[in-house]
Amino acid sequence: MSEESLRNLLEDIKSDKVSIDEAIESLRQLPYKDLGFAKVDHHRELRQGYPEVIYCAGKTPEQVQSIVEAMISRGSNIIGTRADETMFNVVKEICDKAIYHKSCKMITIENHKITLTNSYIAVVTGGTSDIPVAEEAAITAEILGNKVERVYDVGVAGIHRLFDKLDIITGAKVVIAVAGMEGALASVLGGLVSKPVLAVPTSVGYGANFGGLAALLAMLNSCASGTAVVNIDNGFGAGYMASIINQL
Amino acid sequence: MSEESLRNLLEDIKSDKVSIDEAIESLRQLPYKDLGFAKVDHHRELRQGYPEVIYCAGKTPEQVQSIVEAMISRGSNIIGTRADETMFNVVKEICDKAIYHKSCKMITIENHKITLTNSYIAVVTGGTSDIPVAEEAAITAEILGNKVERVYDVGVAGIHRLFDKLDIITGAKVVIAVAGMEGALASVLGGLVSKPVLAVPTSVGYGANFGGLAALLAMLNSCASGTAVVNIDNGFGAGYMASIINQL
Amino acid sequence: MSEESLRNLLEDIKSDKVSIDEAIESLRQLPYKDLGFAKVDHHRELRQGYPEVIYCAGKTPEQVQSIVEAMISRGSNIIGTRADETMFNVVKEICDKAIYHKSCKMITIENHKITLTNSYIAVVTGGTSDIPVAEEAAITAEILGNKVERVYDVGVAGIHRLFDKLDIITGAKVVIAVAGMEGALASVLGGLVSKPVLAVPTSVGYGANFGGLAALLAMLNSCASGTAVVNIDNGFGAGYMASIINQL
Amino acid sequence: MSEESLRNLLEDIKSDKVSIDEAIESLRQLPYKDLGFAKVDHHRELRQGYPEVIYCAGKTPEQVQSIVEAMISRGSNIIGTRADETMFNVVKEICDKAIYHKSCKMITIENHKITLTNSYIAVVTGGTSDIPVAEEAAITAEILGNKVERVYDVGVAGIHRLFDKLDIITGAKVVIAVAGMEGALASVLGGLVSKPVLAVPTSVGYGANFGGLAALLAMLNSCASGTAVVNIDNGFGAGYMASIINQL
Amino acid sequence: MSEESLRNLLEDIKSDKVSIDEAIESLRQLPYKDLGFAKVDHHRELRQGYPEVIYCAGKTPEQVQSIVEAMISRGSNIIGTRADETMFNVVKEICDKAIYHKSCKMITIENHKITLTNSYIAVVTGGTSDIPVAEEAAITAEILGNKVERVYDVGVAGIHRLFDKLDIITGAKVVIAVAGMEGALASVLGGLVSKPVLAVPTSVGYGANFGGLAALLAMLNSCASGTAVVNIDNGFGAGYMASIINQL
Amino acid sequence: MSEESLRNLLEDIKSDKVSIDEAIESLRQLPYKDLGFAKVDHHRELRQGYPEVIYCAGKTPEQVQSIVEAMISRGSNIIGTRADETMFNVVKEICDKAIYHKSCKMITIENHKITLTNSYIAVVTGGTSDIPVAEEAAITAEILGNKVERVYDVGVAGIHRLFDKLDIITGAKVVIAVAGMEGALASVLGGLVSKPVLAVPTSVGYGANFGGLAALLAMLNSCASGTAVVNIDNGFGAGYMASIINQL
Amino acid sequence: MSEESLRNLLEDIKSDKVSIDEAIESLRQLPYKDLGFAKVDHHRELRQGYPEVIYCAGKTPEQVQSIVEAMISRGSNIIGTRADETMFNVVKEICDKAIYHKSCKMITIENHKITLTNSYIAVVTGGTSDIPVAEEAAITAEILGNKVERVYDVGVAGIHRLFDKLDIITGAKVVIAVAGMEGALASVLGGLVSKPVLAVPTSVGYGANFGGLAALLAMLNSCASGTAVVNIDNGFGAGYMASIINQL
Amino acid sequence: MSEESLRNLLEDIKSDKVSIDEAIESLRQLPYKDLGFAKVDHHRELRQGYPEVIYCAGKTPEQVQSIVEAMISRGSNIIGTRADETMFNVVKEICDKAIYHKSCKMITIENHKITLTNSYIAVVTGGTSDIPVAEEAAITAEILGNKVERVYDVGVAGIHRLFDKLDIITGAKVVIAVAGMEGALASVLGGLVSKPVLAVPTSVGYGANFGGLAALLAMLNSCASGTAVVNIDNGFGAGYMASIINQL
Repeated sequence: MSEESLRNLLEDIKSDKVSIDEAIESLRQLPYKDLGFAKVDHHRELRQGYPEVIYCAGKTPEQVQSIVEAMISRGSNIIGTRADETMFNVVKEICDKAIYHKSCKMITIENHKITLTNSYIAVVTGGTSDIPVAEEAAITAEILGNKVERVYDVGVAGIHRLFDKLDIITGAKVVIAVAGMEGALASVLGGLVSKPVLAVPTSVGYGANFGGLAALLAMLNSCASGTAVVNIDNGFGAGYMASIINQL
Repeated sequence: MSEESLRNLLEDIKSDKVSIDEAIESLRQLPYKDLGFAKVDHHRELRQGYPEVIYCAGKTPEQVQSIVEAMISRGSNIIGTRADETMFNVVKEICDKAIYHKSCKMITIENHKITLTNSYIAVVTGGTSDIPVAEEAAITAEILGNKVERVYDVGVAGIHRLFDKLDIITGAKVVIAVAGMEGALASVLGGLVSKPVLAVPTSVGYGANFGGLAALLAMLNSCASGTAVVNIDNGFGAGYMASIINQL
Repeated sequence: MSEESLRNLLEDIKSDKVSIDEAIESLRQLPYKDLGFAKVDHHRELRQGYPEVIYCAGKTPEQVQSIVEAMISRGSNIIGTRADETMFNVVKEICDKAIYHKSCKMITIENHKITLTNSYIAVVTGGTSDIPVAEEAAITAEILGNKVERVYDVGVAGIHRLFDKLDIITGAKVVIAVAGMEGALASVLGGLVSKPVLAVPTSVGYGANFGGLAALLAMLNSCASGTAVVNIDNGFGAGYMASIINQL
Repeated sequence: MSEESLRNLLEDIKSDKVSIDEAIESLRQLPYKDLGFAKVDHHRELRQGYPEVIYCAGKTPEQVQSIVEAMISRGSNIIGTRADETMFNVVKEICDKAIYHKSCKMITIENHKITLTNSYIAVVTGGTSDIPVAEEAAITAEILGNKVERVYDVGVAGIHRLFDKLDIITGAKVVIAVAGMEGALASVLGGLVSKPVLAVPTSVGYGANFGGLAALLAMLNSCASGTAVVNIDNGFGAGYMASIINQL
Repeated sequence: MSEESLRNLLEDIKSDKVSIDEAIESLRQLPYKDLGFAKVDHHRELRQGYPEVIYCAGKTPEQVQSIVEAMISRGSNIIGTRADETMFNVVKEICDKAIYHKSCKMITIENHKITLTNSYIAVVTGGTSDIPVAEEAAITAEILGNKVERVYDVGVAGIHRLFDKLDIITGAKVVIAVAGMEGALASVLGGLVSKPVLAVPTSVGYGANFGGLAALLAMLNSCASGTAVVNIDNGFGAGYMASIINQL
Repeated sequence: MSEESLRNLLEDIKSDKVSIDEAIESLRQLPYKDLGFAKVDHHRELRQGYPEVIYCAGKTPEQVQSIVEAMISRGSNIIGTRADETMFNVVKEICDKAIYHKSCKMITIENHKITLTNSYIAVVTGGTSDIPVAEEAAITAEILGNKVERVYDVGVAGIHRLFDKLDIITGAKVVIAVAGMEGALASVLGGLVSKPVLAVPTSVGYGANFGGLAALLAMLNSCASGTAVVNIDNGFGAGYMASIINQL
Repeated sequence: MSEESLRNLLEDIKSDKVSIDEAIESLRQLPYKDLGFAKVDHHRELRQGYPEVIYCAGKTPEQVQSIVEAMISRGSNIIGTRADETMFNVVKEICDKAIYHKSCKMITIENHKITLTNSYIAVVTGGTSDIPVAEEAAITAEILGNKVERVYDVGVAGIHRLFDKLDIITGAKVVIAVAGMEGALASVLGGLVSKPVLAVPTSVGYGANFGGLAALLAMLNSCASGTAVVNIDNGFGAGYMASIINQL
Repeated sequence: MSEESLRNLLEDIKSDKVSIDEAIESLRQLPYKDLGFAKVDHHRELRQGYPEVIYCAGKTPEQVQSIVEAMISRGSNIIGTRADETMFNVVKEICDKAIYHKSCKMITIENHKITLTNSYIAVVTGGTSDIPVAEEAAITAEILGNKVERVYDVGVAGIHRLFDKLDIITGAKVVIAVAGMEGALASVLGGLVSKPVLAVPTSVGYGANFGGLAALLAMLNSCASGTAVVNIDNGFGAGYMASIINQL
């Protein structure tokens, strides 16, 4: 039911062409779509300046390009995750502002200026091999308007490296712990900081790591309270969730 | 190194019994324990009124009783999770204020009055069988000082039940989504609300549910952003994490 | 928005107390709940005589009783699955018509007479140990108004037993294949009949059966087309789905 | 035993060359093959115009070509699934009518005109990355003679997109729900429509998705009745099963 | 079609009541069942003295009793596997010859005298905890008419124990290797003997044994040729297979 | 201890150079190797004409070549499994008789004439995609001196194809059942034939097939007795085991 | 071949009753058992005072009793693992010195005095629920003659507790790290101490812990070098291995 | 807090600029990093000549090069694991002494002469395909200063090969058992030698090997005491752990 037909109905009530009982019945059938789901939309897409996200994996470069094209016209900032360079190239053709973050395979387009929060999100990794996932989290958080501090390569095998940076970590409003292998970083951080810790298991490792399963299970079973987990290698998800919490 | 021995060392410096070089060497070796880990402790145990938590499973009633005894002397509020009635009975013997929450097998002891937050945490379940886990989350959150709204039995098989309660859910500062079977509730909520959603998979179900694995994997793979996951049946963990976020 | 408030709004339009523009805005915000989700409800709960289903596992006998009580007042037929005898006894107290199907742990209450379809559903099992699951399917289908033919213990280890009954099976409009162990029955039936085959893996077996996983995977990988699978031991689900198809 | 030898045997009975006891013994040994399995064959291969199916994966292009060659001579319509372009090219050489559906890697050959059903099958996907699997289902259903409506990219993360199309979906006689990630689409549809829902988990996703296992388990554990599941990425199987149901 | 009706048909041919063409058509439709599946049956049930097998798990004592009753009337020897003592007691009531093998939970009934083979089957176990499964194999083989040599508790942790008995093992025509934990016995035996080795993984062990999965996988991956594997704890299956091979 | 040194020791006893006590001690320490493991070796390597086997995967072409070179000098027949064409080419350089079986990636070298058994092994496959594994089994069996009958593409989805060939299958002394997907072929064959059935699950399939796991579990859980299983895709193992049984 | 028969053979050589060639042949066939496997036995069973171990699970009390009886006659110290109280009671009947360690379900019998090592093994646990497994390790190590230091309940969620005890831990020659849940203790210890760390995952935890799998995988994937892992809950294995290392 | 600021603080105490109470407070807050973690560091990085390790997988060649560059300046010996040839080439550019071990993909740099231990580590493999992992262990142990004996291709399928080398194996202080497939080698060695056995499962195998899982589980479940396990294919970890034990 379009706005027009709703208006017509109401005018028909007013002019007695339709009885109130008939109108009630008619409105009861009001299809979901016609409501526009205003309240729902508000929080995700209608809020001015909120970035839109494309999960690029499994799409053709052409599909990515045309989705970006549609989004640009709305003036949104844009995040493309799991994008390869070919995808970036076709996006670049139609949008000069597009930037490719090679390490984490993200495309970002900043159509309007982002103001960062005062509080910050600390993104912490166990090793250097976890950095691509951490960067996905960090860049996601930044384009969503958050200040980010990166604390990389402070895994528990050399726990003094972690303690060296403890001030930066404990000063954050949200901590993202990115680790592969046995994922112990999340538990140690969960025990040391009093802020929410979002744990991101990575697929870094081999053998009985089973593509990140070892770290995932470890993080889910963390003996430290105040920790929740996102999917393996899901830096984007952690950055997004951290942003919501940081901006509460 | 106790405070006394540190004081002695410093006085020996002052009185020239120990050279500064010797003192530096001595302090460099300063064992971790002697530092008291003050900063770390602050956030968990020294903060006045913060409840202490006992994971009762795998402990004998006697162990539970003696841990509670020690805690009472510190005046803390106390949470005991996964406690059976025998454990409660021995605790009750030494502490009249102890309350047993049968549905979620928790013991709580409110040694000092809790003031609740204004913002609230919504605890939502898919079915009635998920309620014990939800209660663990809700009661944890309450004794940690949070206002809680319970929205139970609104699973996606009858999605209108969920929409009926959407106002309560979207009004929360944090949402806890508790669901077994296929765990779709978390994804649907993640798509409808703009606040952080903590997903708790439950072991409710049978067959290829594999003790909650189905819901766990579904929640980790949620297509909705703004969701993070705790361990299967870990209502406590979700309530604790939600409390941290709600009180940021 | 209740029907009353909607009526009031429409009358306010009629009497010019509210402008059409205001009313459109107001209706656009119409909360989901107020729509009553009429269309949705039609197919499940409002259709006269359609049974209501309670998944009893994980509920207390008291909860089961009070749910049944509420349903009886609506005059529906009732199915309770995974119910133990204690649950049945408390239900029996408030409803004389309640019947307990011990083999498959179901409670059924036939509040109004069921007329059966002419076409029938064949429920086929590999062994006698699969019968409880098959009975759950068969009784579900019957109380949903379907004629059912039971063909039990015709597993592929003695394939002539299956061929002996092939006429009954091929005469059905829908076939439910219930089998544990290696679940080959579904594939063999899928190759022999031209009607939809709903495969129900059971947890019958031991060792590398892994609680029905072996049969489940086999059925999902069936080389015969025309087969779909429900959860392990989910006789109810198969009976329900078969009923929908049989009554299309 | 060919028809000739059977005829000879019977004539020998008639002419007393063979005693009835000898004939009974002889017929008792009648090999299966000689029966021709008429009843069985009827429903799959002898029915005029029913397409024949080749599962191309793991075959050489030459094998595919020669199977197609044999089928063409029988005048059947043909479906080749999981076919790469090399396979298509060699098929094209011998059959001009062959069409390659690149997105879902299918070859179809329409040797005789297909008349579509009036009732239709709705093929619904959660995301755009699920489209190849959905196309396999849709094209399979079409060449089997069914009208198909495609409703793509209506996943639960933005549930209003799904409600926008609810009329098309609820109007179908059978619904195919294709979704990767957490596969919640199937449960939500199962709760909203009263027709059979065939759920197809896809391998779209990453990390703890485990190649579609997350969606598979979710769909098997769906809290909504009226749902059955096919193998991961098995669009063909869903299309075939839906066709059987749609044409009952 | 019973023998009588077949005889009638043939006599009708002879007496010209039925034409040969009609008879051919009639015989072509001859249902599977009417053939009696003579060839198939021969090897399992019609061979005089061959035991009949009941898988008792999941059956009620009454069901077991009535199956045994039917079998006794045919004069067969009988094996009941996975039987508890209650089942045995009701069987004992109707059959005095019934024997209960407590360690492996088998019922055997020797209705007619068994003559043993000259060649023998060696049943070998890694530990004493594997003996129940080994006994299931040994007793199955014995009632099937095979001479059996038991070589128990010769696991690879003390490989000299195995070598002490090597003569008995290498003298067998078939070797059954029963082992839990890591199941290395099968590989070591496979490397030492030139006869077929049937490996039976047992669920003996704990932790990452996962109910026998460790031994199962080890045996499937044996680096020694000449080994095949049956299901976890499936002593019956190994004894049956060994019997077939021993009596070739 | 070589034969020479043993002879010297015994002569020293005879000539009183060594006391009997010293000799006993010396012989007690007799290293395992010096025994020559004659009995053990007989069955594998010393038996004239028995082929030697190389598992080529994970070896360099050079390693394969030099192992072959050593074997040729002993005059054995040779089987190389999982060999790629590069390996074959370097083998071909040093041995003209080498043959490459492309479909199953085997190299065979027949250094001396093989006489085949009278009894035969039937190698049966469910589909055409299972043929490479079946060929590995068949060629292994042949070079080990067994007559082999191939019965391919007779899977249970069209069970009449299987019955058409039942005579060939039931005539075999050993049956090898090769099947992917749900592996039901093994159960059906196990129920139809009275000879040992060796089941080979293949990795043919997709989705919840999990690289052959579905077929493996199905075969391990076969409801038909007289079946044992080898590793996924292990045609060689099945051929080898079948050969041992066929030549008992 | 007993020592006597060997002596006889050698004397027959000396007295020319047996030729050297005959003797060589005879000795070549010398069965393994007759050698007594002296070298092998030395290290396990013949070494005076070394305890003998019984894995009691799956044995009957009578079996345990008779094994103990046999061992006592040899004067060994004895360890019985996974023993229930019934087993202990029957052992106690025949051996007064038997002690039952209830927490870890072990029976020990100290038949002769044990002298402890100077160096010690540190047994460290994450939580109090891990103590039973730790006690199994500690008591095993003690009866094997090692000094043991217990450091319990120092898990990483409160890492200062661990640092408080670091001196005791770093002073050990071998460290046993016992932890359930996410098993991070092993990684943190591995990074802090320079001695071998034996990690024992425990089944303490719930949900996605999967009976200790989470801790097991975490420990296997430890980012800290110098760590090796034993089976879940295998305190005995860790104590035994630690003893070997401590006594090198 | 650097040494300078600590010195200043102490001098301020001495000169009464700071009271002892203030100093205690100040030292109590002493951040972890300022202590330099001397004790911890000693054992890993400060010990002169101890090699430093780079896990190269997942790093760019440039990252590897710059890490090596930093390490060289400290004069350490260096191990780079999981390095490809490109990484080696860029390392070679800046360090002439770098050696590439192609079979196990390691880079080693011996900046100062290594003196080997007298006792040795035996590295034993089941097959030739396990050699790369074994070499990673052996080379790691060697550059850590240990004498190593390699005993390759002595798997249990031909157990006499193992016994031939038993003297070398039993003479070692530590044994590393490297095996894929079913990993039985570890159990057999564990039963034969009295020294610690470190088991390394390899991913050699196929089918139900699941990338080394079969060998891993087998080794964890070894029935032989005195065995501990490292991650699949983790030759480095085994070599490192063996070195620690060998040098105790």
